[in-house]
Amino acid sequence: MEKYSGLNTMWILVGAALVFFMQAGFSLCEAGFTRAKNTGNILMKNLMDFCIGTPCYWLVGFGIMFGTGNAFFGTLDPMIQGDYSAILPSGVPLWAFVIFQTVFCATAATIVSGAMAERTNFAAYCIYSAVISLIIYPISGHWIWGGGWLAESGFHDFAGSTCVHMVGGVAALTGAAILGPRIGKYDKDGKPRAILGHNLTFAALGVFILWFCWFGFNGASTVCMDTDAAIARAGLVFFNTNMSAAVACVTTLTVTWIRYKKPDVSMTYNAALAGLVGITAGCDTVEPWAAAIIGMLCGITIVFSVEFFDKIAKIDDPVGAISVHGVCGALGTIGVGIFSNGLGTEHKGLVYGETAQFGIQILGGVSVAAYVAVVMVIVYTILKHTIGLRAKPEDEIMGLDISEHGLRTAYAGFAMMPEEYYEDASVAIAAAAAEIKGQTPVEDAVPVVKEAASVSDGTPKFTKVQIICKEEKLYALKTAMSSLGITGMTVSHVMGYGLQKGDLEYYRGVPVETNLLPKVQIDIVVSKVPVRSVIDTAKHVLYTGHIGDGKIFVYDVENVVKVRTGEEGYDALQDVE
Amino acid sequence: MEKYSGLNTMWILVGAALVFFMQAGFSLCEAGFTRAKNTGNILMKNLMDFCIGTPCYWLVGFGIMFGTGNAFFGTLDPMIQGDYSAILPSGVPLWAFVIFQTVFCATAATIVSGAMAERTNFAAYCIYSAVISLIIYPISGHWIWGGGWLAESGFHDFAGSTCVHMVGGVAALTGAAILGPRIGKYDKDGKPRAILGHNLTFAALGVFILWFCWFGFNGASTVCMDTDAAIARAGLVFFNTNMSAAVACVTTLTVTWIRYKKPDVSMTYNAALAGLVGITAGCDTVEPWAAAIIGMLCGITIVFSVEFFDKIAKIDDPVGAISVHGVCGALGTIGVGIFSNGLGTEHKGLVYGETAQFGIQILGGVSVAAYVAVVMVIVYTILKHTIGLRAKPEDEIMGLDISEHGLRTAYAGFAMMPEEYYEDASVAIAAAAAEIKGQTPVEDAVPVVKEAASVSDGTPKFTKVQIICKEEKLYALKTAMSSLGITGMTVSHVMGYGLQKGDLEYYRGVPVETNLLPKVQIDIVVSKVPVRSVIDTAKHVLYTGHIGDGKIFVYDVENVVKVRTGEEGYDALQDVE
Amino acid sequence: MEKYSGLNTMWILVGAALVFFMQAGFSLCEAGFTRAKNTGNILMKNLMDFCIGTPCYWLVGFGIMFGTGNAFFGTLDPMIQGDYSAILPSGVPLWAFVIFQTVFCATAATIVSGAMAERTNFAAYCIYSAVISLIIYPISGHWIWGGGWLAESGFHDFAGSTCVHMVGGVAALTGAAILGPRIGKYDKDGKPRAILGHNLTFAALGVFILWFCWFGFNGASTVCMDTDAAIARAGLVFFNTNMSAAVACVTTLTVTWIRYKKPDVSMTYNAALAGLVGITAGCDTVEPWAAAIIGMLCGITIVFSVEFFDKIAKIDDPVGAISVHGVCGALGTIGVGIFSNGLGTEHKGLVYGETAQFGIQILGGVSVAAYVAVVMVIVYTILKHTIGLRAKPEDEIMGLDISEHGLRTAYAGFAMMPEEYYEDASVAIAAAAAEIKGQTPVEDAVPVVKEAASVSDGTPKFTKVQIICKEEKLYALKTAMSSLGITGMTVSHVMGYGLQKGDLEYYRGVPVETNLLPKVQIDIVVSKVPVRSVIDTAKHVLYTGHIGDGKIFVYDVENVVKVRTGEEGYDALQDVE
Repeated sequence: MEKYSGLNTMWILVGAALVFFMQAGFSLCEAGFTRAKNTGNILMKNLMDFCIGTPCYWLVGFGIMFGTGNAFFGTLDPMIQGDYSAILPSGVPLWAFVIFQTVFCATAATIVSGAMAERTNFAAYCIYSAVISLIIYPISGHWIWGGGWLAESGFHDFAGSTCVHMVGGVAALTGAAILGPRIGKYDKDGKPRAILGHNLTFAALGVFILWFCWFGFNGASTVCMDTDAAIARAGLVFFNTNMSAAVACVTTLTVTWIRYKKPDVSMTYNAALAGLVGITAGCDTVEPWAAAIIGMLCGITIVFSVEFFDKIAKIDDPVGAISVHGVCGALGTIGVGIFSNGLGTEHKGLVYGETAQFGIQILGGVSVAAYVAVVMVIVYTILKHTIGLRAKPEDEIMGLDISEHGLRTAYAGFAMMPEEYYEDASVAIAAAAAEIKGQTPVEDAVPVVKEAASVSDGTPKFTKVQIICKEEKLYALKTAMSSLGITGMTVSHVMGYGLQKGDLEYYRGVPVETNLLPKVQIDIVVSKVPVRSVIDTAKHVLYTGHIGDGKIFVYDVENVVKVRTGEEGYDALQDVE
Repeated sequence: MEKYSGLNTMWILVGAALVFFMQAGFSLCEAGFTRAKNTGNILMKNLMDFCIGTPCYWLVGFGIMFGTGNAFFGTLDPMIQGDYSAILPSGVPLWAFVIFQTVFCATAATIVSGAMAERTNFAAYCIYSAVISLIIYPISGHWIWGGGWLAESGFHDFAGSTCVHMVGGVAALTGAAILGPRIGKYDKDGKPRAILGHNLTFAALGVFILWFCWFGFNGASTVCMDTDAAIARAGLVFFNTNMSAAVACVTTLTVTWIRYKKPDVSMTYNAALAGLVGITAGCDTVEPWAAAIIGMLCGITIVFSVEFFDKIAKIDDPVGAISVHGVCGALGTIGVGIFSNGLGTEHKGLVYGETAQFGIQILGGVSVAAYVAVVMVIVYTILKHTIGLRAKPEDEIMGLDISEHGLRTAYAGFAMMPEEYYEDASVAIAAAAAEIKGQTPVEDAVPVVKEAASVSDGTPKFTKVQIICKEEKLYALKTAMSSLGITGMTVSHVMGYGLQKGDLEYYRGVPVETNLLPKVQIDIVVSKVPVRSVIDTAKHVLYTGHIGDGKIFVYDVENVVKVRTGEEGYDALQDVE
Repeated sequence: MEKYSGLNTMWILVGAALVFFMQAGFSLCEAGFTRAKNTGNILMKNLMDFCIGTPCYWLVGFGIMFGTGNAFFGTLDPMIQGDYSAILPSGVPLWAFVIFQTVFCATAATIVSGAMAERTNFAAYCIYSAVISLIIYPISGHWIWGGGWLAESGFHDFAGSTCVHMVGGVAALTGAAILGPRIGKYDKDGKPRAILGHNLTFAALGVFILWFCWFGFNGASTVCMDTDAAIARAGLVFFNTNMSAAVACVTTLTVTWIRYKKPDVSMTYNAALAGLVGITAGCDTVEPWAAAIIGMLCGITIVFSVEFFDKIAKIDDPVGAISVHGVCGALGTIGVGIFSNGLGTEHKGLVYGETAQFGIQILGGVSVAAYVAVVMVIVYTILKHTIGLRAKPEDEIMGLDISEHGLRTAYAGFAMMPEEYYEDASVAIAAAAAEIKGQTPVEDAVPVVKEAASVSDGTPKFTKVQIICKEEKLYALKTAMSSLGITGMTVSHVMGYGLQKGDLEYYRGVPVETNLLPKVQIDIVVSKVPVRSVIDTAKHVLYTGHIGDGKIFVYDVENVVKVRTGEEGYDALQDVE
């Protein structure tokens, strides 16, 4: 006779893998709903809360949550050396259960990062992650799932609307409130501004990943598959989970369509998460029709809750984490008291005419929310007055990628940050220099021009030389211009239109028509350096003899001002900036 | 003795989660293969067809498909209250089976969105989603999997080449044909143009997700894992599914390499899906070598089919859904009649010298295709003449994100749509205003300039002031210029090259060389507003005293034209546009 | 009595699906850590190594690996026709085991693509993929997992630190060394430059996917779930796998924070993979605390190893594959000899005071590394001297997407490659032409201007006409200008600032403030073509009478140079380029 059940263990392990993968979903959601200048920081926070949480939960969290202890606190059991056979699910070995619980803990921790995105000190966030995994989550977890006082009182939270989501959501609420809104979120009259996320496809993929993983989150929370009741329950859990999320989306689609005239993409995707959070507490104990109603309630709630925190409470939550996890977590907790059919709970819900379960659910929800709020306010306040909770304003404006991680951009090569081309420039430059020296030596051929060009009738003349060329020549050109003494230039991406035809290329079998080709435009304004030298140098660096070598345009400039020094005209061009 | 099998149920539930996750794959594929201006809309359509389909299938779809009924139609059983024990797989509880079937239904529904992408009225698409899930898919599903006439006749469609993919593909074909091609897809001679997708990485990830999930789609379609035959079949299904997809890719790689001179990325990724669709009907009943041949046939077919619909049929299918799901679905259906080894079917296939199965497969494929085509033409025609099937041309050109969802862009902060910087501008502006007023008051110091600058020798002078500064100053600058009465400016992203060194930043341990820094360039053309005021205001707003404050250039402008009014010169600059 | 175990088979098949999905993780990691101009090529390589590997492994690889044969080589068994019942895991049917092994083989193959990214000849890469899957991986695989000499000697490599990762890592090392660094990776003093990846979010998602799938990679390597030992082991494997990865990230975070002053995003994400590779060999046989230590060692090693290859060995590995898979694979192999508790190995590790296992692990690691290095050097050398291993320099600079696949860009519509707008331009142009002809016919009205404009006081006058308009008008404008004889123009994305208000749009319930709207700027420099014609044509093409029709500015140009021909002034504008 085997001691362990392969079936139950496999169920829990597959669930654990899926719940782990929620980290990817959270990362993408948060990155997508925020600005590109903070993407690296958001990815780091989502990685690190999991990575810090994992050893912390092993070190003491698990013991606090599942140790026998008393009604409020388990035991201190560093590195899980104790005997947990009394509380292990039937046929499940210890480490399988520990990994399953670890990924749940990390989910609670990661919820917060979204609400505090784009303005939090990274070191403070790392410390917060440790604290919630070490002690805050395990304590309320002990009350609910570790045999503590709420478990004793009949509180029902099947997969964690309260235990995971509301804990995360309340922590998010206190954090966002103490941090204050992002710079620019509210105008001087206190009216909120829309700060658009940088990539809705990432956010949408994040939601799909979370929904997919929620089948593990809720499904594997049966923690067994070896009794008829458990097997039937697993099927129902899957069905209800999906139903609530789907109906929430349909509801939010409708509400935003009416309220904003057009169906809102990002709010509707949020609604899926709202519906998932809302059904999590009761997915095992409500009928499918009740799951649909819970979804509907979440779909309505999410819209008004997001607006409430944005417009009335003025708590800036870039991804809607407070509304999704906090508010809909509470709704799901109470939902059990309304809709439970009594199969998984001690009492039936209000709709069946019983009130006891409803009361217990309210009690549990309020207790946990109050506990988390109080503790988190203390934690954040200590952080605020020690290492600081918030990034410096100038760092926030520049983006946390560069200030916290020295990362110029998470998207090199796109608009915000050009790709640096390191062609082997030395050859081109050497050739150019030699040729200029040999054929039309700068000092000999154009010294008169040098003076003449710079000054006419007593005032210096300024000239803009505009060069259009291939991007891969940029590095060579920069280097060559630098050696001419040119200390500033402006580069931009443009498209050159020409009639030339390259090789015919195909896209899915159809020839691609292209007469707009990517180029760079370099603008150089000179006064002392002779225009002739700039042109000749550019010609030599760019010349290959092939079509597409580029063009150079020369314009007159009336004046130049350097902002930092206030210098104008000739002086404004002379110094290295 | 347990009534349910934990093993079978777990198998089906894991499969259901995977098949659900195909929605992410479809979303990414379609978003990636189309243009960025429609991304939000595509993400919404893919979410909503699933979310609308879920309750619809629960409301009546499941009953129509699996109710006893007759050979053509199950029963109307709202919210699945009936007894389905006769048709449930061994040991699988009802709701587990329902969720498994729900995600299959949603797959059929979602196929259509790709073919109709970038030009469909969103409301019409929502209605289509409801109709296919409520009734169209369930009816043909009843014929094949619900004990209907095709099931009776020995038609074999293991995991749904016909039932899911061909149904979706034929619906896609009729939809795309009735909609007509996207504006600009065909030139005036009817030659197709390549319209490039905006993100191949998304598309590739979508394909990988679909392939991954297909192991659930085909694998879990054994619906049990408790007999030797079923277990061996599951192994074979996994192997064949993978083999067909892999060989299809190798084949398409080769075909496109020969045909287009270079191996085509997007077509080869499509081929993976073609191979997966093609093996779906027979993955349980063909030998590995036959799976390889089916993959090869799909790999050839996809190339010519995509070209056929593009160039000859002139049906515009942005993602190739018709070819992948419709044509390769048909090929897979017939493939059973050719390659079946008789273990899962009543008769062996043609290669074993039997013809009966081949005949049945043809009959089934043709019947289902004809049924779907007729019904979908009716549905689309009704939609076309009621709420309208197609977006307005101007909306299509602008992109459906803005017209259907009020979403300026799914990618804020990138080239197409700048990030709005809301620095707390009031301080900078107030300081600037005070200083200008105090030290060089505009009215007092430069009124002469005001007139003098504007008009010389009777004709007004136009001047362009070009400001290069940090992006975070843009908002303050805009506001300040606005208060000077400047009603138009052009802003672009440029890179400023300078010799300054900031802090050294590291990327993977190597210091990052950066002398190209992102800046914005603001071009302002003025005539009435004195150039001096613009310069002074800009200087004051931009001044911090640190390196990188920016530069201002002044150019002469010869003429200005305002297109809407036809005004030229001075007048063209005066009005608010 | 059943012959097969549904439980074991399901475990293996779920694992196979997860290990397959690692291909998506590798693709995203590699694409994200490299430049956008090579994305299509990277996606193709990652797809094709799997697709080529699958039939190759079926054709002969599997037989070589698992055939009885001798201690060094299995058997040649094309298409797996032999009897493998002796080596099949308990209760697992053949094809389930074959697919499980196929996806492991493909993992080894795909590791190489990252290290050789951005400069490898695609055809050569396809051949390499075939060779490693056909023969190289199967031979060392036979030694370790196929009952060969290392298996006999007690070498322990649970899920493949050696067998999969070190094989891939050593192949990557030889490949990257023979290929040489990317152009521009080292400056002329041999100092490495940072070449930033184009999308860290993709890379991060890739890491999360790999971590998720690693639960299948390591977990399902128990290959059974039907004994207490196996079930307990599966739980431990999950826990250890996760612990090592998490601790590796925390360690690397700390190391980079100290070493580079700021925590490095991409290195920390790499560390997760380092920790995963490191624990793979011993995840079944070390205690959780040892898993944490192994993670710590990997987290330290990855930083210094990446720096070593970059700065000292000067082997250019864009994604760190050599360090992650090669070095940490070796570390994991040795780690078994240090930390094994003896439950899964013949001897305990060094920390328990035994040395035998340590010796065996060293022997195995060195043998496999030497074997792979020698064979791969031969393979790459043959490729180098036949079809060529490296892309041509000009192709490398331009990007392999266009040169290898004819793909202009994987990201059409973004900065690097504009979206082509194909509005139905003919109508607008015809109208414009008619109107110009009718009201102010070009030939009649402005012929004098034509001459007069071009030449004043003997030297031709050059004029820049700058048009700011909506992007969707670009195609019509290009076509119309072309018909005027204008053969070159420069197009760029700009943002137009104006006071107009469009419809109010909402983002998550908050109205979106937008007064920066995307526009295009077209710069045309003319001399022969009269400025008046350009303006009139533009006005007619752009005119709709609605706000936002655009503006036209006219500037004087002093000179024009065409680089290819060296022509200046009038001549530089005349020819078609």
